[in-house]
Amino acid sequence: MTAPTPIRAAIVGYGNLGRSVERLVALQPDMELVGIFSRRDALDTDAPVFPVANAADHAGEIDVLFLCLGSATDIPEQAAGFAKLFTTVDTYDNHKLIPSHRTEMDAAARDGGNVAMISTGWDPGLFSINRTLAEALFPSAEQHTFWGPGLSQGHSDAIRRIPGVIRGVQYTVPREEALAAARTGGAEISGKDAHQRHGVVVADAADHDRIREAIVTMPDYFVGYETTVEFVSEDEFERDHQGMPHGGRVITSGDLAGSRSTVEFSLELERNPDFTGAAMVAYGRAAARMRAEGRVGAVTVLEVAPYLLSPASLDELIARDV
Amino acid sequence: MTAPTPIRAAIVGYGNLGRSVERLVALQPDMELVGIFSRRDALDTDAPVFPVANAADHAGEIDVLFLCLGSATDIPEQAAGFAKLFTTVDTYDNHKLIPSHRTEMDAAARDGGNVAMISTGWDPGLFSINRTLAEALFPSAEQHTFWGPGLSQGHSDAIRRIPGVIRGVQYTVPREEALAAARTGGAEISGKDAHQRHGVVVADAADHDRIREAIVTMPDYFVGYETTVEFVSEDEFERDHQGMPHGGRVITSGDLAGSRSTVEFSLELERNPDFTGAAMVAYGRAAARMRAEGRVGAVTVLEVAPYLLSPASLDELIARDV
Repeated sequence: MTAPTPIRAAIVGYGNLGRSVERLVALQPDMELVGIFSRRDALDTDAPVFPVANAADHAGEIDVLFLCLGSATDIPEQAAGFAKLFTTVDTYDNHKLIPSHRTEMDAAARDGGNVAMISTGWDPGLFSINRTLAEALFPSAEQHTFWGPGLSQGHSDAIRRIPGVIRGVQYTVPREEALAAARTGGAEISGKDAHQRHGVVVADAADHDRIREAIVTMPDYFVGYETTVEFVSEDEFERDHQGMPHGGRVITSGDLAGSRSTVEFSLELERNPDFTGAAMVAYGRAAARMRAEGRVGAVTVLEVAPYLLSPASLDELIARDV
Repeated sequence: MTAPTPIRAAIVGYGNLGRSVERLVALQPDMELVGIFSRRDALDTDAPVFPVANAADHAGEIDVLFLCLGSATDIPEQAAGFAKLFTTVDTYDNHKLIPSHRTEMDAAARDGGNVAMISTGWDPGLFSINRTLAEALFPSAEQHTFWGPGLSQGHSDAIRRIPGVIRGVQYTVPREEALAAARTGGAEISGKDAHQRHGVVVADAADHDRIREAIVTMPDYFVGYETTVEFVSEDEFERDHQGMPHGGRVITSGDLAGSRSTVEFSLELERNPDFTGAAMVAYGRAAARMRAEGRVGAVTVLEVAPYLLSPASLDELIARDV
């Protein structure tokens, strides 16, 4: 049973994430897409496109606005402005700055009488709630987050900045020994022990040795990690390295007054933006519902009751899932 | 930072679960144990023991009462009576009857101005919230729950009822092919394809063939499952089969408008009652807090925001986990 009145959704930002959210909103039984805000005149979409400068004109028509914008500059510069006008959802992922992002979004959302659902997606997002949930079960939890196997944008960009690199990507892979140690508990696992890094590069053969050396000695990004570099042909790169696979896991273990337990939450994602978009859409539903129930201000994923994410009614979920 | 006033907890029922909850409450930074209600005069505990018949006398002294009682008869007979007097937490696990348990507990808890947190533990409980959460991400989710490797009480009891069985236990084990199919998606997996059953029995050698036959042909419990029976000596049984290990996993996969994702939540538990108790204690914290914020009536795990489970403050959790 779905709500009688659909949730009126809109999107700002039309990169990979915005396009995923557009496709996913179309598949929700309880949402309809009002339109997409853009700085560009024309987008490759059948949805209505509105100039972002006129956003205020649409304030009464939209129950939730998906901020499909980058965390580096767009969210810090634009998110609070949108939160004054609309109930919003974002995927702001600069972990250290999330508390200050929350403060800023809270003020803007209260100013406008809206909800600002912040830092959704999977990390932050689903991983955050699993960290809190699993940690709460143990008097003294040992908890480790692993990322991958998957494509790291930041490390791929770092490889592509090396002179002579024609094309390049980097995959982050959790180390099996570190996963086993996290499950058993009792071992120290540092970030650099936990993951290995694999670069895949297209370059002239004469440049291979120099590029390999530049990668494995790059401070911050690669030094201290077990790093491998593979050179492939342009055709092979085109065929095998165009995807955006990702995933990861949160492993929590500990003693429970005499016995050991391990809790693990893992994701395997064929295409990262699609899954990030799916989490965003579900939290968008929760944001619209919480606003409808009178909540205003910034809300984190830790504050959302699970049933609010589903289009099914609470009674239906209790009969089916509990 | 913990709440300035500790949550005053009490326990009714002093079997495996009640004893686990007692040990775990002692390790919480924000709880204190007021006492244990029992029909027996003396329990092997240092905590105060109160006659269960005098429960009403303690109504003002207890913020949350852990109902460590069996689902077969104790909870149906006694839980609503306690919910009139106290904010309660239970682990009622008869899935089909949870909606009617909720109705009954809701009425009793409202009558007394209390919260009744129902059907906590891991299944129902943590698995329930993962079913709802993961299902909400996919337009059309494929979801499977697996139990084990672990000890099944019901199947162990069934084996022990066979004449000639001196001692016996049964382990439920998910089949690897079924786990792989659930992760990939697209396959039909029935309950009997999903698990295999392994019985471990102590009996006179002359009875082995007859007992094995009685097990594998037992309707409802074993027919249709891949079942193995192992006979061991009394010493070996004593050494290797006294534990209560359990675990399981919820695997959800589906298409996200063009790509596939898989979400998995898994548990590996050295001692089932300790983990069930740990989940119960965390939901007891949430129940006491929700009551303090004015909520009354039955509450399911689907309605609990994750941060309410933790002794840490929301600000601290946001800085640490999000």
